[in-house]
Amino acid sequence: MIILVLNCGSSSVKFQICRMPEYQVLVKGSISKIGYSDAAFKLQIKDHVQILETLPIYDHKSGINLILSTLTIREKSLGFVLTDLAAIGHRIVQGGEQCNDSLLITPAIIDYIESIKELAPLHNPHHLAGIDACAKLLPDIPQIAAFDNGFHMTLPRHAYLYALPLELTEKHKIRRYGFHGIAFRSMVAQAQKFLPNGYEAYRIVNMMLGSGTTANAVYYGKSIDVSTGFTPQEGLIQSTRAGDMDAAALLYLMKKENLTLSDADTLINKKSGWLGLSGMGNDMREIYEASLNGNQRAIDTIATVCHRFRKYIGAYAAEMGGLDLLLFSGGVGENAWYIREAVCTGLEFMGIALDPQKNRDLSGEGVISTTDTAVQILVVSANEEQIIAEDTFDILGHSD
Amino acid sequence: MIILVLNCGSSSVKFQICRMPEYQVLVKGSISKIGYSDAAFKLQIKDHVQILETLPIYDHKSGINLILSTLTIREKSLGFVLTDLAAIGHRIVQGGEQCNDSLLITPAIIDYIESIKELAPLHNPHHLAGIDACAKLLPDIPQIAAFDNGFHMTLPRHAYLYALPLELTEKHKIRRYGFHGIAFRSMVAQAQKFLPNGYEAYRIVNMMLGSGTTANAVYYGKSIDVSTGFTPQEGLIQSTRAGDMDAAALLYLMKKENLTLSDADTLINKKSGWLGLSGMGNDMREIYEASLNGNQRAIDTIATVCHRFRKYIGAYAAEMGGLDLLLFSGGVGENAWYIREAVCTGLEFMGIALDPQKNRDLSGEGVISTTDTAVQILVVSANEEQIIAEDTFDILGHSD
Repeated sequence: MIILVLNCGSSSVKFQICRMPEYQVLVKGSISKIGYSDAAFKLQIKDHVQILETLPIYDHKSGINLILSTLTIREKSLGFVLTDLAAIGHRIVQGGEQCNDSLLITPAIIDYIESIKELAPLHNPHHLAGIDACAKLLPDIPQIAAFDNGFHMTLPRHAYLYALPLELTEKHKIRRYGFHGIAFRSMVAQAQKFLPNGYEAYRIVNMMLGSGTTANAVYYGKSIDVSTGFTPQEGLIQSTRAGDMDAAALLYLMKKENLTLSDADTLINKKSGWLGLSGMGNDMREIYEASLNGNQRAIDTIATVCHRFRKYIGAYAAEMGGLDLLLFSGGVGENAWYIREAVCTGLEFMGIALDPQKNRDLSGEGVISTTDTAVQILVVSANEEQIIAEDTFDILGHSD
Repeated sequence: MIILVLNCGSSSVKFQICRMPEYQVLVKGSISKIGYSDAAFKLQIKDHVQILETLPIYDHKSGINLILSTLTIREKSLGFVLTDLAAIGHRIVQGGEQCNDSLLITPAIIDYIESIKELAPLHNPHHLAGIDACAKLLPDIPQIAAFDNGFHMTLPRHAYLYALPLELTEKHKIRRYGFHGIAFRSMVAQAQKFLPNGYEAYRIVNMMLGSGTTANAVYYGKSIDVSTGFTPQEGLIQSTRAGDMDAAALLYLMKKENLTLSDADTLINKKSGWLGLSGMGNDMREIYEASLNGNQRAIDTIATVCHRFRKYIGAYAAEMGGLDLLLFSGGVGENAWYIREAVCTGLEFMGIALDPQKNRDLSGEGVISTTDTAVQILVVSANEEQIIAEDTFDILGHSD
């Protein structure tokens, strides 16, 4: 079965075409800067064809049309024909409280995603634009939605409730939703390569350390806590997001600096985090290099970021009554050995023992804990597209 | 040496007169509802005299004057004369970054407290009113300030920095200040009664669970983290404060409910917490009773509150590389055995083992852990007035 996986952002579309159930990637690529005259189109067909093109693309439909037409005229290179496409799987950031599992997109589901778009104003409208574009361009192909917060709908009530007046939180659907759920499902699945048992046998802390950065507690197979909250801003210090802070401090800053709600949102989501602390951008490699050269803001940034990581590992271990597995993924989690080392240092009392040499030497995935430690520490490479393709196959596979 | 300890709040004054260095309490009392025609005056002189009076008291100076004149006409019952009063010690909530230790109040110190009053608009102006009233009524008596956040000025930079743009945080002095520091100093001092060594020999998590609720990590004598932040609102779920939340969720609520900054501040500080979750008030005993009767909101409130407590214990243990002592204090911490039990359950992996029987049976202070546990769990009674009196004595003792 040939499946197209689409991840439509506000000004981007990432895509993959893969053969299932073996998850063989046939085509992958992306469009960025949708809405601009210099949008960037990238497409790779196995090892044969690579396209890098700058051109005007003004909406998601044009973008998806470009992908499909580019592939149609290269069908000989593809090894499949586009009419073989059996399904399209979409990543949807916010599924609200109703959509835990991936499901077939119907008009009722579209209405539901539309009804909760205020909960993810930067994401859901663009997902809907992508779904609509596919429905117009490929009207006979079923579409499937995989929800980024679906994995976290198993959080117990005490973990997702904020201590605001209950009437208000219910009226406005305020709760911890958590995000990165598809990536976390991929992390625990990838970890199984290194484990004697399925991931349901372990108490896991997932550290997804990319430019978006989220910690997640998985208790014998179920997500029971996650650091992102009502929005992706809460929790760890992210590349440009502040994460945890005193909400009253934000009110104070709004008053002193005369900030509108929109200014305040921009402040904590776009100008804070590694960028705001370091003052030198949001690339952790650059910050690390500067810290080695003695730049105090860079040193403080890394110390503050790692401090917050450690707090979450401790908190989640406390929630689960202990820890069996610590997983790192994401650009920083997979590549920044110095961050992993700083995070694990001092956590020996809970059975975390990093092997410093293994940790430094690792390239790609692998085990970085000592051999005799209680907690296995793994680096894994999350693959959200694979999870979406698998869900899509599972939902439609029986009719193939 | 006879010392008057004053704790001036926005509409209240709590006071104690004690003999130092033995800390013998001679007089204690309070005035509440200052500014109203039905202010409440309570005063107790040892076991002899008890006064409970409702009368109009319109400002702090009138209140302090009432205390002093009431005592003057009862000097025979006092066992001392007011002219023996050697010093006045004040609790000051916010000392900014400069005032770590208690100190003699000078005009320069008054100017400094005045200069940072925006950081504690509900507290510092009233403290200054109290200091001013004493200077007028008792002009020759030295006054000492003890700062509620002074104990937390040892926090490392990575623990007090928020991940906001550094320029903005420096401009507005935004940082984790933390509060309840005088109470925490008292807790670790009280704990020494049950310990073979001074408190500097231990890694301690302090849980001050009163209507204000704060967790604190004390690493071999130094406060290294605290759950309250720039204001007292951050952290644990308090009686009417929400504590940790996604700041972006607050922005969302402000937009949807058309809240002003002041409304939002009231929402998270006065209408949230146990009150907002339970919908039945902010008395934990009533919430517990309701939970026993199957009230679901009460059950959820206790579960959510205890969940947050456990996260902080885990996080602070991670920061300290382990834990030796867990201290409970405050109205809930000292009396609610069911909260202590719920908090400790599941933390055995970090050496926390509550003795359920000891925990239920305890009245007053004592040890509630099992005898062979790695972490000693103690209930202690914090006495802020004693700490202020001791600081005052230490500063002035040499001149006595």
